[in-house]
Order: sequence, then structure tokens, then C-alpha cells
Amino acid sequence: MDGFCVPGSTVAIRALLFDTFGTVVDWRSGIARDAAPFLTRHGIAADPYAFAAAWRARYQPAMEAVRAGQRPFALLDTLHRENLEGTLRDYGADPTALPAAELDDLNRAWHRLDPWPDSVPGLTRLRTRFIIAPLSNGNIALLLNMAKRADLPWDAILGAEVAQAYKPQPEAYLRTAATLALTPAECMMVAAHNNDLHAARSIGMATAFVPRPHEHGPDQTSDLTATDTWDIVAPDFLALADRLGA
Amino acid sequence: MDGFCVPGSTVAIRALLFDTFGTVVDWRSGIARDAAPFLTRHGIAADPYAFAAAWRARYQPAMEAVRAGQRPFALLDTLHRENLEGTLRDYGADPTALPAAELDDLNRAWHRLDPWPDSVPGLTRLRTRFIIAPLSNGNIALLLNMAKRADLPWDAILGAEVAQAYKPQPEAYLRTAATLALTPAECMMVAAHNNDLHAARSIGMATAFVPRPHEHGPDQTSDLTATDTWDIVAPDFLALADRLGA
Repeated sequence: MDGFCVPGSTVAIRALLFDTFGTVVDWRSGIARDAAPFLTRHGIAADPYAFAAAWRARYQPAMEAVRAGQRPFALLDTLHRENLEGTLRDYGADPTALPAAELDDLNRAWHRLDPWPDSVPGLTRLRTRFIIAPLSNGNIALLLNMAKRADLPWDAILGAEVAQAYKPQPEAYLRTAATLALTPAECMMVAAHNNDLHAARSIGMATAFVPRPHEHGPDQTSDLTATDTWDIVAPDFLALADRLGA
Repeated sequence: MDGFCVPGSTVAIRALLFDTFGTVVDWRSGIARDAAPFLTRHGIAADPYAFAAAWRARYQPAMEAVRAGQRPFALLDTLHRENLEGTLRDYGADPTALPAAELDDLNRAWHRLDPWPDSVPGLTRLRTRFIIAPLSNGNIALLLNMAKRADLPWDAILGAEVAQAYKPQPEAYLRTAATLALTPAECMMVAAHNNDLHAARSIGMATAFVPRPHEHGPDQTSDLTATDTWDIVAPDFLALADRLGA
């Protein structure tokens, strides 16, 4: 675990912290895959990919209510479940008329997302040289079940409930570094989202941008390129491992 | 991940939760190994094994102050550091006259403990069938650094700061199960200490006793045998894996 320093820093990076939804795993395909039979079974007229996008579109507003202090901290599993009911209503379905056990199971589709093809081999190489952990808005049970199913080789799983804050709140980054007994400068945030890296840099973390140009499907327009001078820009986790000497 | 049920239960065990100090790792040898050169260097007349035992003897009283509400929750790294200073004073040394960086490094000897010989191969087998995680009074950074160095293949590291409680307080067990989104009956506590299993059973967890008859050295008198009808009693983690079909 010898040192990799980003240019301009004399502090060696000890931990790589990963955004998860979109950066490590492909939520759009996974949600569409699990939603499709549910929608068919209950006669809900919705394209599964559009349904996945609609469900995901409620993600930031739901967390914003927590960030703004309009409600106490709630686990992402809880927010996803509420958002599922709202999405169903938008498609004209009454969630109270659907079997709760089926809704609970569909909600756990977020625990069953597949990694991008380079994620596991890249993480496996990076783990030989760095502590690797998610820095995600997901809760521990969600991230653990996801990792167990997908063989994500995390050293630790620090769910949002450890920080009791949702990215991009500074506390989410600061408390995660503190939990690892590291300074922010000893941590590098890895994300496919420029705004996540902005927040990480603002509290002193190093930054790596790995674009995922198909996170939102074939017509994606956001986060296709780096919008700032991130410390590293790499096309995938294998290239990131090359750059970090892992 | 098909089901293993303990006799009398219809609920399949999903997660195995492990006491760590003494059950997974050999704290006595590890602390003595790292204390020996420190004691010699500073001319402190102490047998390294006796020093390790004296340091460890302050462990329960320090946590008891937290459990009794006499002080706010404090990380085990903090308690260990205070206990190190107290132990040095008991041996006639003045910790304020010793280099703080050396004390900090010696304190991290608790991050550098070696597993018992069966721990890693046993955990590796158990992990194929169950979620495996420490349920320890250690903090996340300590348990993570220990796991990284010793190749402990935990699925998740849930330090005491996640539960904000110290075993054998019921909250330590209950909040860990809740964090995993499991019921207590879906969890099995694995420990070399009968009192840990008593506390786990009292809140509804299954129990496995794995004696570690040399945890306290060659003259150990406590926890040599099961003092209750635990669900499983196994001589090591490989035998535990046999019993659990892993």
C-alpha cells in the first residue's frame, strides 16, 4: 500500500470511495429487467425502461426532503418504496390494490443490479493497493445484498446511515473519511457524475471521473465528459487501475 | 443461500455474526509482539504477555463507563488509547514523557492482530452460504484495517459506532440485525465467550460456541467449555462450516 499522490499533493491516497448507482452498477437495465414481468402481470402499460427512468427521477427529490430537513433521515430502501408507489400512480395503477409482498420484492430490485463489465475486475485490481468502499446514498443492507450477489469486493460497506447524510451534503463525504480514520486528502472519490466530484473536491478529496455514457440509455446527454479538471479521467475501472498503478 | 435452521426454529439463518477479539483473532500474541520492542526501547520492565493482559483488563471497565451512561459513546480506538496510558502508568512509566506518535502506533497494534489458523479458511467457506460480518465492540476503521491486513473476507464491517452501543447491551445485537434488514432469528452469533452468546440468545439470535482455549494463554480457566445448550458447539471455524453445510 505504497503511495499514489495526485499532482500538487504530498499526501498518499489510501482509500478509493465509489459512487455506486450508475458508476459501479447499471441501475437502468436492472430495474427494467425486474419491472418488466411485474408490469405485464398487473396489466400496467409502461415501457420497462421508461418505468425505470420515472422511478429513478424521484430519487433526488426524495433525498432533497431529507437534506432540507423536511423529514428525518430515512433509509434509501424506504425512499425507493415510497417512490415506487408514486411511480405506479403516475402510470395509473393503484399501489394499495397490488400485493404488498410483490411491491417489496420489486423494491429490492435495487439490491439486484448488475455491475458494468469492467467493475468487478477493476475493483479487484484496485483493492490490492487501496481500501475500496462505496460512498453511496444506498443503505447498508442494500449495498451488502448488491455486493454479495454481484461479487463486488468491497473492503467495507459504509451506507448512508453511517453518515446520516445524503450526497452531495459535505457531511456525507467528511463523515465517511472520518469513519475510516483518514483525512479527506487521503481519499479519492470515483464517480460518473460531475456534481458528486465537485462536492468531494470542495471538502478536500481527490477526484476521478469515469464516464458511464449509457447510464441513462442510448440518448444520454448528461455527464458524457468531465466538466472540470478532475485529478484523473479514465474510460473505465481497468484504465483507472492502470493510472493508479494497481 | 438455501436454508440452515437451528433445531426448533423454522427460520433459515441468513447471517453469521462474529465476535472478533479472541474469537477470530489472537489479541494476546499480537499485542505482546508489538509491545515487546516498545517496552524494551523505553526501558519499561514488563513481560509483553503480562502487559497485553493488563491492557486488555481495562477493556470491559472502559466500555462499562459508556454502557452505564457515565460518558458519551466513544470509539474503541479512543478507549484503547486511554487504557494504554493507564497501563503504562501501572508499570511506572509516564505516558506524557513518551513520544505520542509511538503511542499512537502501538495503539494501532489492535488493528494488526493475526487470525487463528482456521479463521480465514473457515470464514471463506462460510461466506459461500451466509452473510458474514463482525459483531464486535471494535470501530469500523479498526476492523477494516485488521481485515485488510489479515485477509478476513467479511461481507460487511459493522463497527460498534453503527449500533452506538457496546456488547452485551441488547441494542448492539438488535441494531446490527436491523442494519442488515434481518430479524434476530435470521442471525447466528458466533463467539468464544459464553456471556456474548447469552446476550445474543436473549434477544432471539441463534448461537454457536467456538472455544479458544488459548485466548488468555496457556493457563486459561474461563470459557473453556459451553456453559449452556448453544445451538452449535464446534472446535473451530472449519468444523462450524461442516456443521452449517458450507
